[in-house]
Amino acid sequence: MISVEEALEKVLSYVEVLDAAETPILDSLGQVLAEDVYSGINIPPLDNAAMDGYAIQAKDTEGAGSESPSFLRVIDTVAAGSISETEVTPGTAIRIMTGAPVPRGADSVVRFEDTDEEERKQASAGGMSGEIGILCKIKTGLNIRRAGEDVTRDSLVLAKGTVIRPAEVGVLASLGRSRVKAVRRPVVAILSTGNELVNIDQPLPAGKIYNSNTYSLAALVRRCGGIPRILGIARDSEESLVAGLREGRDADMLITSGGVSAGDYDMVKDVLAREGEIGFWTVRMKPGKPLAFGRIKSTDKGGASRYIPHLGLPGNPVSVMVTFEIFARPALLKMMGRKDLARHTVEATLADRVVNSDGRRVYTRAIIEKRGDKYFARLTGPQGSGILTSMSRANGLVVVPEDRAEVKAGETVQAIMLDWNEA
Amino acid sequence: MISVEEALEKVLSYVEVLDAAETPILDSLGQVLAEDVYSGINIPPLDNAAMDGYAIQAKDTEGAGSESPSFLRVIDTVAAGSISETEVTPGTAIRIMTGAPVPRGADSVVRFEDTDEEERKQASAGGMSGEIGILCKIKTGLNIRRAGEDVTRDSLVLAKGTVIRPAEVGVLASLGRSRVKAVRRPVVAILSTGNELVNIDQPLPAGKIYNSNTYSLAALVRRCGGIPRILGIARDSEESLVAGLREGRDADMLITSGGVSAGDYDMVKDVLAREGEIGFWTVRMKPGKPLAFGRIKSTDKGGASRYIPHLGLPGNPVSVMVTFEIFARPALLKMMGRKDLARHTVEATLADRVVNSDGRRVYTRAIIEKRGDKYFARLTGPQGSGILTSMSRANGLVVVPEDRAEVKAGETVQAIMLDWNEA
Repeated sequence: MISVEEALEKVLSYVEVLDAAETPILDSLGQVLAEDVYSGINIPPLDNAAMDGYAIQAKDTEGAGSESPSFLRVIDTVAAGSISETEVTPGTAIRIMTGAPVPRGADSVVRFEDTDEEERKQASAGGMSGEIGILCKIKTGLNIRRAGEDVTRDSLVLAKGTVIRPAEVGVLASLGRSRVKAVRRPVVAILSTGNELVNIDQPLPAGKIYNSNTYSLAALVRRCGGIPRILGIARDSEESLVAGLREGRDADMLITSGGVSAGDYDMVKDVLAREGEIGFWTVRMKPGKPLAFGRIKSTDKGGASRYIPHLGLPGNPVSVMVTFEIFARPALLKMMGRKDLARHTVEATLADRVVNSDGRRVYTRAIIEKRGDKYFARLTGPQGSGILTSMSRANGLVVVPEDRAEVKAGETVQAIMLDWNEA
Repeated sequence: MISVEEALEKVLSYVEVLDAAETPILDSLGQVLAEDVYSGINIPPLDNAAMDGYAIQAKDTEGAGSESPSFLRVIDTVAAGSISETEVTPGTAIRIMTGAPVPRGADSVVRFEDTDEEERKQASAGGMSGEIGILCKIKTGLNIRRAGEDVTRDSLVLAKGTVIRPAEVGVLASLGRSRVKAVRRPVVAILSTGNELVNIDQPLPAGKIYNSNTYSLAALVRRCGGIPRILGIARDSEESLVAGLREGRDADMLITSGGVSAGDYDMVKDVLAREGEIGFWTVRMKPGKPLAFGRIKSTDKGGASRYIPHLGLPGNPVSVMVTFEIFARPALLKMMGRKDLARHTVEATLADRVVNSDGRRVYTRAIIEKRGDKYFARLTGPQGSGILTSMSRANGLVVVPEDRAEVKAGETVQAIMLDWNEA
């Protein structure tokens, strides 16, 4: 048996960061930048008004107060998006709206509230006179946002490797970038194996079960940013398996479920060994002990041979989901160029007793709740690996280490958070 | 000025949970169930083998041991997906694979490892004899998964209101459901206003800036599960605004940016008041003080009048993102049927001093890190609301309460986590 860490290290060593593609910025959300993004412009491009008011020369407000306003001649008006052709000279002011470029000659902006504008408006029924009174002394530079305050021209704004979130999408737009080089999302081919499986749109004959693994895997792939490609169900025959595997050959990863244990009808192993390279592992974990990992031979468009990483998960629905979390998710994140591959974990007080009978690392489905600033975990009920509804009741996995034969109620455990804070 | 809580309560009171639609289960990921899902079947449907082995009657193993095996006659083989027509009677066994239905007459399954199968295989070069030796005493019921162990027929499996995650997609598939009633995703029309704005695929004339708000908003909408509809840029003229607003009328929510402060060119207010109902708020928060909220008159397909909630955000790129987080995101989640509308917050030790000059609640962009089991926050640098790159450097917002004029370095603060643990 190998440890979870050894198995994960091996899986990660088989996958590489995918190639990049020019991607519309909105579609790149959640992907990773594959280029250093430099700015071709200053942001803001020009010194501009931070408030609605009047662009003036500060020295004109020496000695101004509410009882003794400085009166200036209003020589123009400028709104955001326009540039005033007029220059502010001593004794003059240009009315200016937030975001408008500061006119030549002006060194500060006095906001409406510090002028007698409102008073004048009321006196003249809304019409503006050619004069404005400034009601206080103003400091040079007041209410001016400087050109390049956010971004200076030719500077590195977003580094290669940055995860593209809404703020990055906004930053790219502010630079005038409609497309960006981003690491491609992996296409993951998903194949379920077993004669007992029936597709979900079919009636269920006696002795058969619905194929759920394909759908929980496709949802897991999609949630972590990959593109699932559903290959359907392969029967327990070499022909069916080989046909299924070949259909998945131009994907970036192949995930199969079932067919990796020791039963006579588990032929995935033999077929895989012939179609590529495969290692069969008993990983020191529960659920999920039987696991296969390797690569499948393929041919790229140019005719060169390539290999696709292949993860052979157990057939039980809970084992499938847990082994995906532990091995496939970090591998897919690595392929997408992500650096932080681990899920968020918390320390929680366990409400139940968990027995660990055979020295494996146990991942127990649990409900984790925060009360005050502490976390508490309780099991979701029966932990059989066939009980998929227990996964649906859980929001985390409590980890019982290999070297602990038992964790008692009240003990502190590590819990992997599965679906917190997604939106 | 109204408080953030009052403003949020008002916004939430204007939005309702959207109608439901039959949705393919994989596409429903992240949506909320709009029906109680009952099971039409037992899962598993029949008692079945939990291990590869032999289906037997336990009483046949009385006195069995590795030195004194119980020898049974092998009368059939059954794999998962098949049903044996043969009945297990005293002195007989049926070879059985994991997941295969337990044959009539059998009450337990003894795994291969507890039989002499391997020995016999080696002795006969892989061929099977008609007999098997059981090497230990077996308890009745051993290695049998009971019918209905996961789900019993006619039981409620997933309740209305459940968020559909990968486990729920799997559970729905296991019930043979290919579609499910889920609360629809809201379509959010996004309109940026301002003569200064230029679309990202155009050259940038002097005095203009690129329209970034549309893209950060669209990305935020998409991240929380909505469907953005980009209406582009409206100019500071009534005609342009009215045309823009009307294009967004069949959306579920309208978000505008800009045009809500006191400047002469901020006409969004006047137009909105005429096209529907609108309230203008100065919310006790920073950034984001000027905010508009109301609804726009519209007509549904049947000709009946309806109202679309409208959120008028400030024009500054950081204000846009922060006010979206505080008001639009909870509103969209409510429309999607979500109950938990708040982002995850942590208590963090602040590395910097924050001054709160005018009694507003300050949302400060920060980098929050976990060291050991403690969280630490530091500011991302200059906090001007035009500095979008500061939002891109942040992973959280540190909250400075209205009644605190200052928070000193080393104090404990609440931090809203913006983008943790998404995949």
